[in-house]
Amino acid sequence: MRYSTIFPKTLKMAPSGAESINHQLLARGGFIDQLMAGSWTLLPLGLRVVSKINQIIRQELNSTGAWEAQLPLLHPKEIWSRSGRWDDPAVAEIMYRLKDRSEREYCLSFTHEEIVMDLLGKYNLSYKDLPIKIYQFSTKFRNELRAKSGILRGREFLMKDLYSAHVSLEDLEVYFAQVREAYLKIFTRMDLETRVVNASGGVFTEHFTQEFQVECDAGEDMVLFCEKCDFAANVEVIKSNNCPECSGLLKEVKTVEVGHIFTLGTKYAANMNVNFTDETGNKKPLWFASYGIGVSRLLGVLVEKFHDERGIIWPESVAPFKTHLIGLDLENEEIKAQAEKVYQLLSADGVEVLYDDRVGLSAGEKFSDADLIGVPYRLVVSKRTHDQIEVKKRADKNTNFMSVTELLEQIR
Amino acid sequence: MRYSTIFPKTLKMAPSGAESINHQLLARGGFIDQLMAGSWTLLPLGLRVVSKINQIIRQELNSTGAWEAQLPLLHPKEIWSRSGRWDDPAVAEIMYRLKDRSEREYCLSFTHEEIVMDLLGKYNLSYKDLPIKIYQFSTKFRNELRAKSGILRGREFLMKDLYSAHVSLEDLEVYFAQVREAYLKIFTRMDLETRVVNASGGVFTEHFTQEFQVECDAGEDMVLFCEKCDFAANVEVIKSNNCPECSGLLKEVKTVEVGHIFTLGTKYAANMNVNFTDETGNKKPLWFASYGIGVSRLLGVLVEKFHDERGIIWPESVAPFKTHLIGLDLENEEIKAQAEKVYQLLSADGVEVLYDDRVGLSAGEKFSDADLIGVPYRLVVSKRTHDQIEVKKRADKNTNFMSVTELLEQIR
Repeated sequence: MRYSTIFPKTLKMAPSGAESINHQLLARGGFIDQLMAGSWTLLPLGLRVVSKINQIIRQELNSTGAWEAQLPLLHPKEIWSRSGRWDDPAVAEIMYRLKDRSEREYCLSFTHEEIVMDLLGKYNLSYKDLPIKIYQFSTKFRNELRAKSGILRGREFLMKDLYSAHVSLEDLEVYFAQVREAYLKIFTRMDLETRVVNASGGVFTEHFTQEFQVECDAGEDMVLFCEKCDFAANVEVIKSNNCPECSGLLKEVKTVEVGHIFTLGTKYAANMNVNFTDETGNKKPLWFASYGIGVSRLLGVLVEKFHDERGIIWPESVAPFKTHLIGLDLENEEIKAQAEKVYQLLSADGVEVLYDDRVGLSAGEKFSDADLIGVPYRLVVSKRTHDQIEVKKRADKNTNFMSVTELLEQIR
Repeated sequence: MRYSTIFPKTLKMAPSGAESINHQLLARGGFIDQLMAGSWTLLPLGLRVVSKINQIIRQELNSTGAWEAQLPLLHPKEIWSRSGRWDDPAVAEIMYRLKDRSEREYCLSFTHEEIVMDLLGKYNLSYKDLPIKIYQFSTKFRNELRAKSGILRGREFLMKDLYSAHVSLEDLEVYFAQVREAYLKIFTRMDLETRVVNASGGVFTEHFTQEFQVECDAGEDMVLFCEKCDFAANVEVIKSNNCPECSGLLKEVKTVEVGHIFTLGTKYAANMNVNFTDETGNKKPLWFASYGIGVSRLLGVLVEKFHDERGIIWPESVAPFKTHLIGLDLENEEIKAQAEKVYQLLSADGVEVLYDDRVGLSAGEKFSDADLIGVPYRLVVSKRTHDQIEVKKRADKNTNFMSVTELLEQIR
């Protein structure tokens, strides 16, 4: 894609009021724009990163046998009343509610347990239809009083939510463990180290839940991490300075929750009267679980973790492009033709190229844009490179000269 | 993908109240479920079709130089007030509005002209930054009194919306014509014949707009189509029975609007004070246009156009899968192994396979499910097929026996 055609270009200064690093760098790089507190436009570069994140999640969830779907965002009061959550003050406070022209009441998607349960209830399910595993990438709304920390906390944000329904707690637990492993794989694929913390399910459940926490100074959670093993726990739970598993020292760290998985038991099914027929012909309530990943939040966490003073350093798996081709001296027709040729050759080979084809900018301006945007491989074609390319990895200092063929061999 | 794991399976009967063909067949096939009037869940098969539709749109819009983005759904009153549309009674009537905890007012995304204009206004644009072409796949909300015709008309629905900003009317008109061609290509790629009708811009604009209309008995529009040439016009506009272009006979047909493109002039930019700096350093208002395609509506139109008494007949370009592999006699281990082998070979070759791996269903049950779901190629492995596959196209009557290699040659 040609950088000359993209909107917007980079900004020299972060927007006023952008206090967090993720907001500053994502806004300056042209990844996001703040519509209002807690609400963000994904600009073309930002959407590309989110699409990469979603594709990683999709692959790992598909391999657990889950199917992708898409559920509505405007929910009738009636369905939320059936679970009892419409009248839960803690939920009511944080839900956006509205009425239509006929004075019927709705809420905006706060989460989708009720809508999935209502859907399952329409299909006269038998044990043969179970387990059911459905997920979506969707927008969630939270009527937060304050929304700070950049894109880490939103009033309107993107979430992947998965729901599973089972014949028994045992069956649920098997799948729950499978999703837990899938989550760890998902985060590892984006170079994020997460620790699993047992937590309270808040307005979702009285059962066992697990949070996936990433150490991050911009985070709003405080968690105890063991310095010797993988153990982690909520500050409230542990009284000692030592790890209960390996006796290593526990340190208190700031974290961001990037995922949360909930055992929901049979409460939703019982409240909403959603049953399946078991092998003996009896009706039984479904065992239910839900599993969330904060997708727009991940965009922010990745920037908080992977940046330097010059800009973002995207992990390759989620970078908006694999290569950032910079054409210098493009006023010279021969060099321009050479840069175009490299662009075409790489593209034809399936390599994603962001091609800075702008004429009249200095090398310094183009290099600092590339550092800010943070694509893994910076490629330069200029009057100095002849029929070669100057290659530099965003995270490295040294540059190398190589042919297109050599480059393709290296990055394939 | 294994049909045994999908939710939901086909339904014998359409849900009560499903009057339109698209609702009946899409619900029975497991593509959609109605949450409430005008609001639909895209079930896994339905989402796959929508993803195919979106990918066609994406390819054609990218080739016009447009970039994909994603804009928020909850919009502050303040931005809509700047264009004057918050106070337009015709808009107010059909907008969902709500307040947050602090009594601030919002609307749900009715359309995104205002939000795009607000975004453009933040970037101090020069003529060098123009044109700008941004599109998204997003949810729109319309507070309709009645929502009927199945998924053809929704209170919450999926739309592709593209926005372009230009230095001049001339530049806008060049791109407008380019998008018009892209639209025709998009619809042709899904085997839909569309006619372009000049129309009124309603609450959007006083300028020139064009609708893309598909002849369809389930439609709510009435348009005059020329029987001899491509001419089409609104019933109100033409008084004669003869085409003004070729004198052919005009017939009145029911249609569905699948796309609508709007020249918006400088009104939005002037009202919202969004300018660019021209070559002489003067500030001028942006020329603006928007372009919509009704994505969830297309899902319905495709079914209305392409079905028979047994079910849907998807055009190959948007089918949820290319092949529907039916395993019969799977109690027999040898046949099961053969069916699995075919499934693996096709998948390894990149062919999308919906594999009906259910045990204990009759051939009749599996065949009628396949006819209902409407995948282009039905493949059967049974005790009668030995090391071959019985191949039948959904739209054809005759079957052929061939090897996997021969099949791959035919469908690649």
